[in-house]
Amino acid sequence: MRIDIITVLPEMLESPLGCSILKRAVDKGLAQIVVHNLRDYTTNKHRKVDDYPFGGEAGMVMQVEPVDRCIAALKAERDYDEVIFTAPDGETFNQRMANSLSMLDNIIILCGHYKGVDYRIREHLVTREISIGDYVLTGGELPAAIITDAIVRLLPGAIGDEQSALTDSFQDNLLEPPIYTRPAEYNGWRVPDILLSGHEARIAEWKHQQALERTRRLRPDLLQD
Amino acid sequence: MRIDIITVLPEMLESPLGCSILKRAVDKGLAQIVVHNLRDYTTNKHRKVDDYPFGGEAGMVMQVEPVDRCIAALKAERDYDEVIFTAPDGETFNQRMANSLSMLDNIIILCGHYKGVDYRIREHLVTREISIGDYVLTGGELPAAIITDAIVRLLPGAIGDEQSALTDSFQDNLLEPPIYTRPAEYNGWRVPDILLSGHEARIAEWKHQQALERTRRLRPDLLQD
Repeated sequence: MRIDIITVLPEMLESPLGCSILKRAVDKGLAQIVVHNLRDYTTNKHRKVDDYPFGGEAGMVMQVEPVDRCIAALKAERDYDEVIFTAPDGETFNQRMANSLSMLDNIIILCGHYKGVDYRIREHLVTREISIGDYVLTGGELPAAIITDAIVRLLPGAIGDEQSALTDSFQDNLLEPPIYTRPAEYNGWRVPDILLSGHEARIAEWKHQQALERTRRLRPDLLQD
Repeated sequence: MRIDIITVLPEMLESPLGCSILKRAVDKGLAQIVVHNLRDYTTNKHRKVDDYPFGGEAGMVMQVEPVDRCIAALKAERDYDEVIFTAPDGETFNQRMANSLSMLDNIIILCGHYKGVDYRIREHLVTREISIGDYVLTGGELPAAIITDAIVRLLPGAIGDEQSALTDSFQDNLLEPPIYTRPAEYNGWRVPDILLSGHEARIAEWKHQQALERTRRLRPDLLQD
């Protein structure tokens, strides 16, 4: 899978994309992640990509032309399944969306910045608008990193222990049961006896009950799907 | 405001915390953001912070002891308003929560990693569990960066144009109206005439109608609060 990320702040993505599981997935050839500096697609000598909004308002707006030029250059090289724009008012990102995006071949993620992007970009160039949640950030770079991380870890072979992704929260609409590791007692805080009992069937039953109970208490909405 | 972030992957946070508005806020003394490597709080020679889960399951679990030692060391220096754990099954993060967290003095954010953290950490050491959305990531580092970014940009003086944060999506439970910048026509795509008209009152009315209309169509839930 190939993910192209278009941004005015490529340096912000360096460490999120260059660490840990994402780096390993790229090193193994499971994913190709290419970051493009939007300023490389400007035609003015100051490499300016933003201007004041029409109709008077605070903040600067990303211009349509460099974005159009960058996307056109990418599309000239290969077909893209989606051109995603990270926007606080897009569709809310969730695990189901991560699953389906992880099955695509090529996607572009455009990171908004400043006050936002010229609306014509959203009307004519973007195929999908995704919000990672109901909060405002300084730009779309962290959301692009989040979407990339959520997708790439699902690619077969990306995380060391493939069993581990299957039992994640949300994959079966249940939150995970409590987990514990050594020592069995710390500071007077003990691990539940059942987990130390060695009875596999009873442990599995306990985990399922705990997952159900936690989901009912904390996220009853997940059980209504 | 001071934010202490505890992680096993401090390098993953370097560029998100070292760029743009966050960097400027730190340089201006508006925020102090300190990243702690959890491995510095281990007592074993391999600096190991995880172990196998009790009851048999795939994945590794972060141990209670180094987390307890790190939090205790921080608390010995100053009082903390919250010890936040980034968890997919925590309270869902939103703009209102960002607003209220931005008024605190000192917070700790603990990043989970691997399969999760020993549940005793969540029961005894953490005061608040926050999820940035219903999806699973490789670790809590990006969520910690998201929470930090959303909070710090709200600190007075953090973003250049303070007007700009006031008209963000969610601050008034309305999505933003479409915004446009030069050129007025590109590729045959025109900016709405009203925005070029110069009639301030009519433009303001148009923006409000557009914001309402987009919110009703895309996020009717925001109007029910």
